[in-house]
Amino acid sequence: MNKHIKYDLFRYTQKTTFKFLIKAWLKKPGFKYSYYLRKISGHNLNSISGLYYRYMLKKLTYKYGIQIPINTKIGKGLFIGHFGNIVINNDAIIGENCNIAHGVTIGQTNRGKYKGCPIIGDKVWIGTGSVIVGKINIGSNVLIAPLTYVNQNIPSNSIVKGNPMVIIENKNATKEYINNILN
Amino acid sequence: MNKHIKYDLFRYTQKTTFKFLIKAWLKKPGFKYSYYLRKISGHNLNSISGLYYRYMLKKLTYKYGIQIPINTKIGKGLFIGHFGNIVINNDAIIGENCNIAHGVTIGQTNRGKYKGCPIIGDKVWIGTGSVIVGKINIGSNVLIAPLTYVNQNIPSNSIVKGNPMVIIENKNATKEYINNILN
Amino acid sequence: MNKHIKYDLFRYTQKTTFKFLIKAWLKKPGFKYSYYLRKISGHNLNSISGLYYRYMLKKLTYKYGIQIPINTKIGKGLFIGHFGNIVINNDAIIGENCNIAHGVTIGQTNRGKYKGCPIIGDKVWIGTGSVIVGKINIGSNVLIAPLTYVNQNIPSNSIVKGNPMVIIENKNATKEYINNILN
Repeated sequence: MNKHIKYDLFRYTQKTTFKFLIKAWLKKPGFKYSYYLRKISGHNLNSISGLYYRYMLKKLTYKYGIQIPINTKIGKGLFIGHFGNIVINNDAIIGENCNIAHGVTIGQTNRGKYKGCPIIGDKVWIGTGSVIVGKINIGSNVLIAPLTYVNQNIPSNSIVKGNPMVIIENKNATKEYINNILN
Repeated sequence: MNKHIKYDLFRYTQKTTFKFLIKAWLKKPGFKYSYYLRKISGHNLNSISGLYYRYMLKKLTYKYGIQIPINTKIGKGLFIGHFGNIVINNDAIIGENCNIAHGVTIGQTNRGKYKGCPIIGDKVWIGTGSVIVGKINIGSNVLIAPLTYVNQNIPSNSIVKGNPMVIIENKNATKEYINNILN
Repeated sequence: MNKHIKYDLFRYTQKTTFKFLIKAWLKKPGFKYSYYLRKISGHNLNSISGLYYRYMLKKLTYKYGIQIPINTKIGKGLFIGHFGNIVINNDAIIGENCNIAHGVTIGQTNRGKYKGCPIIGDKVWIGTGSVIVGKINIGSNVLIAPLTYVNQNIPSNSIVKGNPMVIIENKNATKEYINNILN
């Protein structure tokens, strides 16, 4: 099994067996979507299998309302809990073992000192409806509460919430929120 | 006609006749979705009709982007005005004659004193994009403005708005917002 | 080519040729949706072509999660960057060269002095997740940041952000945000 898929699968099922791969593929829209996303990166886009994976991803993009470009850099252990209205810019970089909820946008700022896209660390939990924009750095072990508008750097070990946002230092920011990490 | 469906139908059409049932089913995605949701609760899941209703609900889940688990407790008179990105946790409890807009999430908090899911009263209007989380009690006759992040108890007869939220006492909170209630 | 379609097309491709019309129709869900929306307004609803365009728009409404009624007044040069959870009330009026992001709602207030729907000027950029409601006037050259809840008049040349919202005067509000305008 592709390494990224194996780590993703463990996030959903706590297993890495073929049986659970099938289960997650059938029952978890987020896993099914990222399965094709991961498959594409390992295949020549002009091969038959490359074309097939791209076709499937395109279909799921509309079915699930998930818009993640195929060349977006996302570390292993991605967890997408619910489908719907997820939009990520292809210049964003996302670390390992992150959770992305429905309604999340990770996008670009078009001018000013933050012109560009976010770089997001490991173990970052992004709550539903949150929008993260601009060339900012988000540390690791960060919980972004639902409906937060994030447009500034966030240090590691933080909870962010509100609009405008406030940052609260917390060593246990993602405790009970990011689970089932395969080491 | 199933009691819940009758009360739901009246919210959309001010009628409870078969003709308006057909009309609402054809024209109102929110009604069509909750029609199958209600039908499932009255049928053995292993019967042919039970399987058919579940199949239809599954199909509509993707078509409309509405994710309400079949065992979620929702009182009669539910009104879903627009489809899209509605996610409700199956442990949430929702009272009678509530309005749920597109983009609404009713979900779980994973730790702390509010660990769990919301209990929502009667005549609660939930505006688009709002997120309600945690083991909190929301009273009756409550208007939750669009884009509100609700993570604390809300007394009856209130308007809630903002992120962070503020609570404003108002006896007429849902006046003109929750209409067509069948008694 | 229909004038509105020509101006819309230029927003996406900087061209107005037939070749780019095909390209945009194939690659840009927002353009494809507004293409049918524009086509409908020029056709008798009972003609074969009128019925065909309405059928296509209906299909795309569910595929893309874009809910714009066919009689909504929207000026030329509309740009919809991403699909998903866009809901506009048919009494809203939108000016020329506006950008509407995914997750945007433009809706009605049901009571009080702002009862009604928004009137939006030219060159207004509406960020993802924002909600604009009530009989309010939004000027021209206005940038509405993501996740902003707008329920009051906004003067021209402003940036609006936050929930509750704040207004910041800015002559360059939409610079680098609204591009490719055909004169």
